[in-house]
Amino acid sequence: MKLVFLGTSGSMPTERRGSCSAVLKVGRDLIMLDCGEGTQRQMVRAHVGFRRNMVVLVSHLHGDHVLGLPGLLQTMSLLGRDKRLDIYGPEGLISYVKAFSEALGGPTFPVILHEVHEPGVVYEDEDLRVTAAASSHTLEGWSYSVLEKPRPGRFHPEKARALGVPEGPLWHTLQHGEDVEVEGRVVEAGMVADPPRRGRKVVYSGDTRPTAELVELARGADVLVHEATFAEELAERAREDGHSTTVEAAGVARDAGVRLLVLTHLSSRYPEPGGLLDEARKVFARVVIAEDLMELEVPLDEVAEAA
Amino acid sequence: MKLVFLGTSGSMPTERRGSCSAVLKVGRDLIMLDCGEGTQRQMVRAHVGFRRNMVVLVSHLHGDHVLGLPGLLQTMSLLGRDKRLDIYGPEGLISYVKAFSEALGGPTFPVILHEVHEPGVVYEDEDLRVTAAASSHTLEGWSYSVLEKPRPGRFHPEKARALGVPEGPLWHTLQHGEDVEVEGRVVEAGMVADPPRRGRKVVYSGDTRPTAELVELARGADVLVHEATFAEELAERAREDGHSTTVEAAGVARDAGVRLLVLTHLSSRYPEPGGLLDEARKVFARVVIAEDLMELEVPLDEVAEAA
Repeated sequence: MKLVFLGTSGSMPTERRGSCSAVLKVGRDLIMLDCGEGTQRQMVRAHVGFRRNMVVLVSHLHGDHVLGLPGLLQTMSLLGRDKRLDIYGPEGLISYVKAFSEALGGPTFPVILHEVHEPGVVYEDEDLRVTAAASSHTLEGWSYSVLEKPRPGRFHPEKARALGVPEGPLWHTLQHGEDVEVEGRVVEAGMVADPPRRGRKVVYSGDTRPTAELVELARGADVLVHEATFAEELAERAREDGHSTTVEAAGVARDAGVRLLVLTHLSSRYPEPGGLLDEARKVFARVVIAEDLMELEVPLDEVAEAA
Repeated sequence: MKLVFLGTSGSMPTERRGSCSAVLKVGRDLIMLDCGEGTQRQMVRAHVGFRRNMVVLVSHLHGDHVLGLPGLLQTMSLLGRDKRLDIYGPEGLISYVKAFSEALGGPTFPVILHEVHEPGVVYEDEDLRVTAAASSHTLEGWSYSVLEKPRPGRFHPEKARALGVPEGPLWHTLQHGEDVEVEGRVVEAGMVADPPRRGRKVVYSGDTRPTAELVELARGADVLVHEATFAEELAERAREDGHSTTVEAAGVARDAGVRLLVLTHLSSRYPEPGGLLDEARKVFARVVIAEDLMELEVPLDEVAEAA
């Protein structure tokens, strides 16, 4: 699992930071978190392909978070994508995509739009579960958690052999945590494989004030990507504009007990973000500032928690 | 007069080239030629301000030429622009701008949209005249010429003094090419100033096949910015897609007798454009390939042509 930041600016792009977007690579698949202007070009730069299985999670319908969608769909069309693309976002998503598609021509592959109307699970497949919680901004929006489902623990072939289990379908069954029978004896999965590994969890705040809902959503996350539009001295401005300060973002990370906090959506007034980092660090030590094209391996916890 | 290329890619951006846009700086004012995705960020990089007097000329309503408009208008709004902005383009421009403004919130300053319905002069002020000619693409579009009006010739104060003209309003009159009377004698403008200088001319093709109309529009231009999506070996593809090859663009430049040809809108299949340049050069020697953030001083012709 790898998180790639494509754009990390606040409402206006700067020389250093493009409009907001990130992708979470899960194997060969992609979960995109917002899609600000310039996202498609950053995907080229980050060598993120346009033909992969992909789901887009839109936090809210402000231009700096969604103006990259038309170009992304156009480029995918030009490249002949035929796989469906699912986009999740707040009410208004459908009319936004319809508006630019009608004006400029729509995509030539299936784009499925899902408006999220209530908190809870919005997307689920074999490997992942995406959950939304309401954000608190100047218009309706959602924060998202992406939770990997528990995966089988590490399999030890030598132990299976020692217990007389022949290589083949029985190994496969054991690898998936189920017991097998060999010549009348039961071989338990736990005898030849480590306990299941907990899934990794990445949470994205979108633009928001710090809220109890977000703390709950982010509980125990490996990575919390949280907006920090302003330094603490602009706390009042943050409150007025429905944004968070460095210190507020760090407070969410601390209260949720996350492993790593990544600050993004920095206002263009901070060309050098060192001061922001120092502020946040006083509240929560494990914090970094996102940079465009920064890649972050989401660490696999080998310690079994599901055991 | 300076031409600044903001994006020079074909329909898809690449690592090296962003979507199509250029600005012509005329003194402190700006004429923008198309506004592809990412234009606002390139403006930041090129130190082109968001509060200047500005006119946007849109060649046609394909995404790679207009997807930067929503973000540009949003950023201008956030920065508190109050000056009007005039945008010219083909039919459909109004419904496009209306569509994204309704979906995401419109600009907070006056944006005046002008749909161009026939060739001829579309915009004129004290200094400039903008003329449109129909392009030949897969949908309605326009090529534009920006022609500076003739400017007064260089004024020689020492000659005025020698002829007894006192510094002040009379100098101003002479500088603007009009004769004055001093103590009963007529002093002609031509006695103290060089002949008027012809205005500079910059022409932008948009996406198009080479046409007689474009040759006419570009006649004698200082700079012709012409699309060259394909190399000559893809001439048939160019014909099918309503684009031009290097050699076709060079032919337009040659037939129009321009001073400099700049090739832009290069397909992403040409990461290294050296071969394209060589092809074009065989037909027309004074040719360069546009690069993102390239700046080009449009030379002032000191030789009076209006004399």
